[in-house]
Amino acid sequence: MTATTSLLTDHYELTMISAALSDGTADRQCVFEVFARRLPTGRRYGVVAGTTRLIEMIKDFRFDPDEIAFLRRTNVVDEPTAAWLSAYRFTGDIDGYAEGELFFPGSPILTVAGTFAECVVLETLILSVLNHDCAIAAAATRMVTAARGRSVIEMGSRRTHEEAATAAARAAYLAGFTATSNLAAGLRYGVPTAGTSAHAFTLLHDDEPTAFASQVKALGTGTTLLVDTYDISQGIRNAIQAAGTELRAVRIDSGDLSVLAQQSRELLDSLGATETKIVVSGDLDEYAIAALAAEPVDIYGAGTSVVTGSGAPTAGLVYKLVEVEGRPVVKRSENKRTVGGRKTAVRRHKPTGTATEEIVVSQGVPDHLPNDRLLQHSYVANGEFLDVPSLADAREHLRQCLISIPWEGLKLSAGDPAIPVVMVSAA
Amino acid sequence: MTATTSLLTDHYELTMISAALSDGTADRQCVFEVFARRLPTGRRYGVVAGTTRLIEMIKDFRFDPDEIAFLRRTNVVDEPTAAWLSAYRFTGDIDGYAEGELFFPGSPILTVAGTFAECVVLETLILSVLNHDCAIAAAATRMVTAARGRSVIEMGSRRTHEEAATAAARAAYLAGFTATSNLAAGLRYGVPTAGTSAHAFTLLHDDEPTAFASQVKALGTGTTLLVDTYDISQGIRNAIQAAGTELRAVRIDSGDLSVLAQQSRELLDSLGATETKIVVSGDLDEYAIAALAAEPVDIYGAGTSVVTGSGAPTAGLVYKLVEVEGRPVVKRSENKRTVGGRKTAVRRHKPTGTATEEIVVSQGVPDHLPNDRLLQHSYVANGEFLDVPSLADAREHLRQCLISIPWEGLKLSAGDPAIPVVMVSAA
Repeated sequence: MTATTSLLTDHYELTMISAALSDGTADRQCVFEVFARRLPTGRRYGVVAGTTRLIEMIKDFRFDPDEIAFLRRTNVVDEPTAAWLSAYRFTGDIDGYAEGELFFPGSPILTVAGTFAECVVLETLILSVLNHDCAIAAAATRMVTAARGRSVIEMGSRRTHEEAATAAARAAYLAGFTATSNLAAGLRYGVPTAGTSAHAFTLLHDDEPTAFASQVKALGTGTTLLVDTYDISQGIRNAIQAAGTELRAVRIDSGDLSVLAQQSRELLDSLGATETKIVVSGDLDEYAIAALAAEPVDIYGAGTSVVTGSGAPTAGLVYKLVEVEGRPVVKRSENKRTVGGRKTAVRRHKPTGTATEEIVVSQGVPDHLPNDRLLQHSYVANGEFLDVPSLADAREHLRQCLISIPWEGLKLSAGDPAIPVVMVSAA
Repeated sequence: MTATTSLLTDHYELTMISAALSDGTADRQCVFEVFARRLPTGRRYGVVAGTTRLIEMIKDFRFDPDEIAFLRRTNVVDEPTAAWLSAYRFTGDIDGYAEGELFFPGSPILTVAGTFAECVVLETLILSVLNHDCAIAAAATRMVTAARGRSVIEMGSRRTHEEAATAAARAAYLAGFTATSNLAAGLRYGVPTAGTSAHAFTLLHDDEPTAFASQVKALGTGTTLLVDTYDISQGIRNAIQAAGTELRAVRIDSGDLSVLAQQSRELLDSLGATETKIVVSGDLDEYAIAALAAEPVDIYGAGTSVVTGSGAPTAGLVYKLVEVEGRPVVKRSENKRTVGGRKTAVRRHKPTGTATEEIVVSQGVPDHLPNDRLLQHSYVANGEFLDVPSLADAREHLRQCLISIPWEGLKLSAGDPAIPVVMVSAA
């Protein structure tokens, strides 16, 4: 792992800077925008996540001497470009949607303005962070919706890249998950962490009662005992034997969770453990969670599906040059949705608070109607990095946004974006 | 980003250690194995990748004082466990398949032996690294196979988490890709990097001829000009106008690549640029690459599909306790494929060199037949970290392995594993 993040960058960003420095265009004032041309198939909304994490990385975006030496040695850049990179500081403006905001095809979720060179060098990092975190947050939000107020714990670290795991835990918490298994997410982002034991702990011991007794002795009756290493019914009896009816929870990680949850609830109740909760895990996605709605489940553990975006592992966001020296630009071969020029976005609402549409105006400002909400906020102004909302703020913001969209937008089934984006060119 | 990798770990690994330290089982000698119960649906082989990267991380696996303070402050561990973690050094044995080796359901690709505590604390990191890198390598290998000797360049950094991008670039190179766009992969792993320019560079300039002239001036005629910002035919004319017939390559990033490759070849040839190569990119996966086999394409650029595992973003590897103090252990509720006990694996071949099956023996050694190949090598012996093969070695090893499997195994279509794994219990 390098100390800086500057080489988490595509080679061509630097060759472009090299050419632009030598022909004098590197200093042209540009505007780049991040948006999705479409949502993953059937998804009704996207969720903005990762922006705060990204802004911190941009603040520290530097090329250290080892990295410069590598770029020179391999001839990726020439000497003037190396000097320019060595002195790099972002001095422009960054505006964007808040973390936790919903987005739709065409929503300009991040706008980066400055010289061509200082903006283009950030492209790869910006897209890596946002494409990953937004993908996880969208999948996680669907799971939270499917859980209908029950807790969901993120436990997918082992199913994704080790650093992606930590970002995924953050994005899932933003989406409303109650905790993560990932300790680094606890240290770095203050996400509550949770976990008690795996099957290996039971197998390590001579028998299940010994393992449970040990766990309760070490962690107290406020722990969760994993009861499916051998026979689940016997496991539950052993659990209550070890911890008494004060046991906080049992976890079931395999089998037909629907049937097992019911049987376990009946057995726990019959043993007097009426307050002991049932945690289920094992390949749960939003559909499996929804299918358990009628069962006596208290807590869901989600792993693979959340960290891989439940079928949509990347958010499809692009970073496009839309303005050069005040002139709107657009690639001709693109489809008609793409509009050049810097955009301003508002979300329009009924008086009841229900969102109706998003108005995105190129090179102008939307008419202001009552109940409109401006969607863009300043993160960086003239190179000054402003205070950012907390992760808790982002989590609450998303909760409010979900309340505001038309109810169809929360359906798990495939459908159109919950609200349309109306693109207006003021020019 | 923390300096160490120790908190890239699930909470429950540490609570298990806490309980095991207090009941005296933490020091029991254990064997854990990494294997896949199944391959992603329809896949015919898995590819081992990430092991070298992992072993380096295990070598440096330490809990620093800030991390220990966090674990105490949040009550994740008690004081004796904190002391144990502070002193952590892996002192056991790690054996495994070589990077670039193929694997199948049940192949014991990594074996970790030592005390329960020292082995279990590595679980999350081991699985994160291997599940990610093996997933990317398998998808990338299919793309290389589909490309039939043509070059494939990895350019997906922006579609995955920023650190995952670097690991993905490494895994794709191992799989036979010729280069990556990711600069950090160049610095960290010596992967060749490549890249020239994006549409933004053309849009930055007053017109396409000016942009091309600038790029050629800065980067020489050995560069690749991106010709699809406006009209592709005019783009190709402008490219040859700017660089002459010495131009190394043109890139097309949109549209019907099959038709466009043919038209572009004809046009280049008619302009005398018969040696100018054609690079195509834009949502290419192994099937799209295969579909272009008959077209005059020289180089493929693959992005999203490779970094997201082309539909299988995680390899499904698990880390299971199989032996405690020499006694095989197994979770009763698992399916019949799971066998307890430490495994030894060989791959059996015909005299012609074609692999026929993999023999995996629990608590014993396979009969040695001529043409058998032992699959496990020592990475760590009694806490001593041994030299590991280079990335170039791994790349060549995979190439040889692909030659050795039955030809059906290389088909892109859905099918069974290329060879069966025969599980034998010697006990």
